[in-house]
Amino acid sequence: MTIPTHVQAMLARMRARFTPEKLRAQMEARNAPFRTLRPVRAASEKSVLGYWDRLIGPATKADQDLIADPATLQTAEVYSGNIENFIGTVKVPVGVIGPLRVNGVNAAGDYHVPLATTEAALVASYGRGAYAATKAGGIGTAVLYEGVIRTPAFVLENILNAGLFVEWVATHVEQLRAAAEGTTRHGKLTSIEPVIDNDVVFLICRYTTGDASGQNMVTIATHALCEAIARDCTVPIFKWYIEGNFSGDKKASALGLMTGRGRKVSASVILSDAVIAKVLGTTADEMLAYGRIADLGAKLSGQMGAQAHYANGLAALYIATGQDAACVAESAVGFTRMERRDGGLFCSVTMPNILVGSVGGGTGLPSQSAGLNVLGLKGTGNGAALAEVTAALCLCGEISIVAAIAAGDFTRAHENLARLR
Amino acid sequence: MTIPTHVQAMLARMRARFTPEKLRAQMEARNAPFRTLRPVRAASEKSVLGYWDRLIGPATKADQDLIADPATLQTAEVYSGNIENFIGTVKVPVGVIGPLRVNGVNAAGDYHVPLATTEAALVASYGRGAYAATKAGGIGTAVLYEGVIRTPAFVLENILNAGLFVEWVATHVEQLRAAAEGTTRHGKLTSIEPVIDNDVVFLICRYTTGDASGQNMVTIATHALCEAIARDCTVPIFKWYIEGNFSGDKKASALGLMTGRGRKVSASVILSDAVIAKVLGTTADEMLAYGRIADLGAKLSGQMGAQAHYANGLAALYIATGQDAACVAESAVGFTRMERRDGGLFCSVTMPNILVGSVGGGTGLPSQSAGLNVLGLKGTGNGAALAEVTAALCLCGEISIVAAIAAGDFTRAHENLARLR
Amino acid sequence: MTIPTHVQAMLARMRARFTPEKLRAQMEARNAPFRTLRPVRAASEKSVLGYWDRLIGPATKADQDLIADPATLQTAEVYSGNIENFIGTVKVPVGVIGPLRVNGVNAAGDYHVPLATTEAALVASYGRGAYAATKAGGIGTAVLYEGVIRTPAFVLENILNAGLFVEWVATHVEQLRAAAEGTTRHGKLTSIEPVIDNDVVFLICRYTTGDASGQNMVTIATHALCEAIARDCTVPIFKWYIEGNFSGDKKASALGLMTGRGRKVSASVILSDAVIAKVLGTTADEMLAYGRIADLGAKLSGQMGAQAHYANGLAALYIATGQDAACVAESAVGFTRMERRDGGLFCSVTMPNILVGSVGGGTGLPSQSAGLNVLGLKGTGNGAALAEVTAALCLCGEISIVAAIAAGDFTRAHENLARLR
Amino acid sequence: MTIPTHVQAMLARMRARFTPEKLRAQMEARNAPFRTLRPVRAASEKSVLGYWDRLIGPATKADQDLIADPATLQTAEVYSGNIENFIGTVKVPVGVIGPLRVNGVNAAGDYHVPLATTEAALVASYGRGAYAATKAGGIGTAVLYEGVIRTPAFVLENILNAGLFVEWVATHVEQLRAAAEGTTRHGKLTSIEPVIDNDVVFLICRYTTGDASGQNMVTIATHALCEAIARDCTVPIFKWYIEGNFSGDKKASALGLMTGRGRKVSASVILSDAVIAKVLGTTADEMLAYGRIADLGAKLSGQMGAQAHYANGLAALYIATGQDAACVAESAVGFTRMERRDGGLFCSVTMPNILVGSVGGGTGLPSQSAGLNVLGLKGTGNGAALAEVTAALCLCGEISIVAAIAAGDFTRAHENLARLR
Repeated sequence: MTIPTHVQAMLARMRARFTPEKLRAQMEARNAPFRTLRPVRAASEKSVLGYWDRLIGPATKADQDLIADPATLQTAEVYSGNIENFIGTVKVPVGVIGPLRVNGVNAAGDYHVPLATTEAALVASYGRGAYAATKAGGIGTAVLYEGVIRTPAFVLENILNAGLFVEWVATHVEQLRAAAEGTTRHGKLTSIEPVIDNDVVFLICRYTTGDASGQNMVTIATHALCEAIARDCTVPIFKWYIEGNFSGDKKASALGLMTGRGRKVSASVILSDAVIAKVLGTTADEMLAYGRIADLGAKLSGQMGAQAHYANGLAALYIATGQDAACVAESAVGFTRMERRDGGLFCSVTMPNILVGSVGGGTGLPSQSAGLNVLGLKGTGNGAALAEVTAALCLCGEISIVAAIAAGDFTRAHENLARLR
Repeated sequence: MTIPTHVQAMLARMRARFTPEKLRAQMEARNAPFRTLRPVRAASEKSVLGYWDRLIGPATKADQDLIADPATLQTAEVYSGNIENFIGTVKVPVGVIGPLRVNGVNAAGDYHVPLATTEAALVASYGRGAYAATKAGGIGTAVLYEGVIRTPAFVLENILNAGLFVEWVATHVEQLRAAAEGTTRHGKLTSIEPVIDNDVVFLICRYTTGDASGQNMVTIATHALCEAIARDCTVPIFKWYIEGNFSGDKKASALGLMTGRGRKVSASVILSDAVIAKVLGTTADEMLAYGRIADLGAKLSGQMGAQAHYANGLAALYIATGQDAACVAESAVGFTRMERRDGGLFCSVTMPNILVGSVGGGTGLPSQSAGLNVLGLKGTGNGAALAEVTAALCLCGEISIVAAIAAGDFTRAHENLARLR
Repeated sequence: MTIPTHVQAMLARMRARFTPEKLRAQMEARNAPFRTLRPVRAASEKSVLGYWDRLIGPATKADQDLIADPATLQTAEVYSGNIENFIGTVKVPVGVIGPLRVNGVNAAGDYHVPLATTEAALVASYGRGAYAATKAGGIGTAVLYEGVIRTPAFVLENILNAGLFVEWVATHVEQLRAAAEGTTRHGKLTSIEPVIDNDVVFLICRYTTGDASGQNMVTIATHALCEAIARDCTVPIFKWYIEGNFSGDKKASALGLMTGRGRKVSASVILSDAVIAKVLGTTADEMLAYGRIADLGAKLSGQMGAQAHYANGLAALYIATGQDAACVAESAVGFTRMERRDGGLFCSVTMPNILVGSVGGGTGLPSQSAGLNVLGLKGTGNGAALAEVTAALCLCGEISIVAAIAAGDFTRAHENLARLR
Repeated sequence: MTIPTHVQAMLARMRARFTPEKLRAQMEARNAPFRTLRPVRAASEKSVLGYWDRLIGPATKADQDLIADPATLQTAEVYSGNIENFIGTVKVPVGVIGPLRVNGVNAAGDYHVPLATTEAALVASYGRGAYAATKAGGIGTAVLYEGVIRTPAFVLENILNAGLFVEWVATHVEQLRAAAEGTTRHGKLTSIEPVIDNDVVFLICRYTTGDASGQNMVTIATHALCEAIARDCTVPIFKWYIEGNFSGDKKASALGLMTGRGRKVSASVILSDAVIAKVLGTTADEMLAYGRIADLGAKLSGQMGAQAHYANGLAALYIATGQDAACVAESAVGFTRMERRDGGLFCSVTMPNILVGSVGGGTGLPSQSAGLNVLGLKGTGNGAALAEVTAALCLCGEISIVAAIAAGDFTRAHENLARLR
């Protein structure tokens, strides 16, 4: 009784299926021969079909035709800069919402937003939020900060040398900046912040990266910066690493939460009582009442930040527009607020880690490029606007889910929309 | 000087572009008329084309053809259960790695793993890790826990009634279980854990969900459970909410980190010195030396968990196999360990929040289903194996990146592979 | 300029004081002979004076007389069970507040609370909060949970054996309970929760500990439990440790935050507008307005929990009543809430990790025992009441500081009260 | 069965003691008349005795004599600047350890360290660590950062005004610095870092505070800074608060963890195998093996930082030397590392939030001043050295506890030493 029931249930399931001997045999390392797939970088119809020869078995020819469809096969080579061992494409359904009105520092206009997802109700929910926000006059947005981080680590002999190392870096900043910025047209080094733990020094290198999300750009620039240090620094360096697992790249971290990584954006709207009643089917008071509980739940459960479901909108937009979907792990952190205001209900999101680009990465691939074009935000000059639309989108999602849970509609919506499956 | 340089840089950029007046005008709410997109659930060629009529403008006919290609148009209705306002599909390139040998409690065999991503070097890096792990005899895996959580919140009159409410729930568990499990064939309620904050009670409801990831299943079951409470409980309930924003659904939270959500899996392998040298081009000592720094970086930067880049493998596998990509936000949390062992270098990941299903969600869509078939893990009976392969995949990614950074290869790999773009 | 100014300032200070050579010499390990103090457990006037012979030098005879005053010297031996190498006592000033009315499950009455601190304004601030709360009819309190944790760690051969180990523990719970409870009259083992990370198993052992805070009690009980496992378990154990640094003992941790450690208590009061105006010099709206900001600040700064200054009240009460002051590190975590209610402003604290005892530890020392007597909560039967008074006290502190900051009084209060120094 | 056993046990205990009716009556607000204690700031024998007249009842005359002993009564007025409602002193036993050899940037010498605690084994354990470290040649230390934070919050009309506010602050830094520094001889403003969440701006104001811990100093300085802003800023400010609950004052927060608050210090020593064997009774390998588990436990349990028991040493030293014991809540956060080195076992602590002063606060009180004199670190010029000794002390505690748990001695030591009680 003292052992939690879910542990007991797990043990019972295991006992029913296995003896220890059987498990031991099954889990032993096996040295059976195998033939690894030959790596291919420059994809072609031939290379794709070559892979499929190996995959047929569990997979069927029908599966092959779905992934390596004729249109994909014909354009195989266009994917070569974005993937290795290419076998085709997975077709992720895209829904569209809008217009979403944004009155931002960088984004200004009515946007149609493409969302790629396989989860029923997601598009409908964000669409409802967008409708409410647009009816309320649109969402105000501002990029508050920008800066992608790389954080190389340097191992010194001892704490004294760690201090002397920081001294050296601080007195050679311009030379280091030149080394870093020499690798890139768009990246600018905005600060170097040393963090010392005894004999180890991390350098938080912050860059602006123009309209690209910039993760590779800052890696390459920081590599050059590190090489300049390694070559010129008069303090002996035992070892250096391009990334000390400190930058928060593709993970939720307090550093990102507080200082921002990528672009930090606030987005807000004031919803009138009429809009809340008509579009959302509830009241500001009901939304605030639930908002208090949701905030308490976020804190009691040790959430990093306090929000409802940024990840849904982020993943859908990132996939539809060729962003790095893995960055959802770090972007889905932030702060949703709701407050009574004269004009109605003030709703706001602040998201410190939006990583999007209007150029580079996957944005040049055919359908992803088309996704950006639906938004009207492809190419140079649109990076900041894209970040603001991203935050505005997440605000729509927060408004809609809070209203749905406050009104008791949440389950029904999911039940109905998934029923078509 | 006292103001951080990145703030100063930001302010300078703003000053160069705007006057306050201009910004004020631009950011005002605008009541210009607009026409919202008509929501459509049951997609058809006609509905898709209807939307595109509205999108042409920023987007072109060429964009339309890329997203609403003929093959997609012909099968529009198959997506209706997974998305609303359907306008076509985005084609995410898929690379394949393997065979990846897994010697697990649930997964046992050599797997080819499809990875959907637009980030160069990702597939190559995971492929390298898989090759090393398979050469070492394969990866041992075990599901340690399973349980998807829903956490409804109940608002009572005061703390006394909160206590009486918990008493009522504790003495009516069987009746609540019946209500919950009556909604589902596969979901089983394994525990109800009350968390009280004064007059608010959250009930952590844990379920096993068979082979599905189960997020909708537990929502519907918990809704029924809550309705049973609301109907029968003798303690007056002011308000209840299906989710108190406590469950960690689609976000990194301490609750998920510690108690697990979805499936918790450990995966490990012992790499011999020969494998490390030959496949990874470095040594166990170099990997351990970097591992210590990476672990320190994780802690100093306030990472939730301590790992390098689970999110990359997770996002790629989730997209390729029809999982919910938004769950990357919660799944990309866990613990990577490396230790010297007699046979070489012990490498392990433990991931408490893997949310995958071999049935349900997006797994039934055409190309996603094909992705699961490449793995050979489609359909009933494969949920746990899929979770184990997921963890094994992430272990491959950890091995590869640690080796690359330890050996100083990381930047070069990214530079070269993205050059084809 | 790119280097933060505080780093530059630090480097400038260092340059002004040191050369690298000077620092290097200064920081070298020195093997000069030394004579360590002889450890003494059973204190006596002689042993105290013996130590002082060694301390005179930086310290003077006057210092000796202040710490080893005649009254202390005469009673030296009474401290022997609580400290080693005894040299006297430090006299921490005690202020008293009250009556603080508590209407709790366990505490019921009007209490005078002794607070030991050297920080001006602390007692006055808590006293003001207590006055407001008592005028409002008193503070409702309830112990919601109790359970002190020890978490031994077991290292197994591999994940399979980790699973078999958990299986063995789960099927031998009664025998393990007997071993644990055989060491203590008051400790009861309420649950064992295994947490697996590959080949390592942590057992969260929860106990109720009667009226003692119980930290030593659970250590000794768990040691016996571990020895029983080590002796009888059929799965080979590589190594076990009495504590895997998992329990949250004397540190802020998510585990303590969520599951509680020690006693979890909620305390609340509804302050009428009249009380807020008259006693606190502000309004409910002003307090709520600041409360929103304070809550936002807590989240943005990555606070564990969300509260203002529990630590002040906790440290003062713990020192005055012979509790373990180091436990402030874990106790000073929790959740302060304020909400509009019909009767006024609902103010609540929920503190999951209160570690206090009405017996044991330092509670038997002369002046500490007197401190508990001022409260009227010394001895058997008072542990839970003491925990509730602790939470009620912290609520008073939250009310007072929120009101002071909302009203703009905070700085002035500190300035005035410290001026007497 | 589905309800956790500790919840069931709690409910059973409640049922045995109470009916709902009884509890309801007991927990109702009570308006019985009461007489609050009259606040007294300037303490005197008369005021002390006046309070005791009110406390006799639960407390006895004997209790009064223990707290309001003759020596304390005679010197009542010396406490007036540090406490209100003074009723005497609590006598906290002090043990001494040493010499502790420190080879630091700021601390250099052999120190005897006074530790005030009521927990058996604490002094002995730290003493053992100090002996090992000193035998190994002493502990190297360095203050890496200093800066006490105050973080006022400003509420603006909207995000645009938030931006304009930051612009105003950034262009008026010198004037704000003058306002802040005009209030203090020792405080220097080193940076102002704005953090924006939509319409709310927090200003992280960092100061060096000379040899004082400086919490009041920075409050007063920041108050002046805020008043200057409120008076002169051309952007309308709705409301400002001296502290936005953002600074991490007296609580564990990610901000403090990462940027430091107070003084950040690293301390380290290399223990030879001989010292580990002779003094600590174990081996470097055993300590490293346990270190890995302790580190894993820290991460799995969601600890903020990763260390064993800094709080024990901190609380004891803070109380013995007149520091603010409530700051243990924020100081007890940091990073303990152990690594194999040529010379033996490298052991290090890095503590970002040490808040100590060699002047100010409680350091001027009689016995606390004597405590500082035992260390030889009283008065001007010793603040940084005191911080370094604090970190060195905590390192001793880490070494000792890791060795004790690795060797299996931990429980026995506590059992034996508490037996004298």
